[in-house]
Amino acid sequence: MKFSIDLNNIIGIIAGAITTSALIPQALKIYKTKSARDVSLMMFIFLAIGIALWFIYGILIKEIPVILANFISLILIFTIIFMKIRYG
Amino acid sequence: MKFSIDLNNIIGIIAGAITTSALIPQALKIYKTKSARDVSLMMFIFLAIGIALWFIYGILIKEIPVILANFISLILIFTIIFMKIRYG
Repeated sequence: MKFSIDLNNIIGIIAGAITTSALIPQALKIYKTKSARDVSLMMFIFLAIGIALWFIYGILIKEIPVILANFISLILIFTIIFMKIRYG
Repeated sequence: MKFSIDLNNIIGIIAGAITTSALIPQALKIYKTKSARDVSLMMFIFLAIGIALWFIYGILIKEIPVILANFISLILIFTIIFMKIRYG
């Protein structure tokens, strides 16, 4: 049972690390090109709301990978929204 | 206890519905404009790998909202990757 919980946590942590990291190339791309015309603002507003709920969900089911990944994702999403509004 | 499980599930389902739906405006934007220059291909490749792992994680922790949301997300992510490669 303990092994099973550990395996879940490891997969969850890797999954969370990858999906959260995914936001970094997009943030860097906008920062470098100063352009976000093709990036959907609505996508990132929806993501912000949804990820905030995933964060709450993580707290409710007491799953650290869910809590952590979604917290860091939220910071990156707000960064992208800020740049999208600034650079258009 | 049953109420608690139901509340978790409801929040998880709403969170999953919103984060999955977030991909739709991005997919539609690329489809309409036939342009995805500012969209990071690396973001969506990372997302595909990460979301596939979240899907496996959902199966391991037996959480239907995690399984379902990530399955539908995967389909939308592959659609966006396909259009990004096609339209650039």
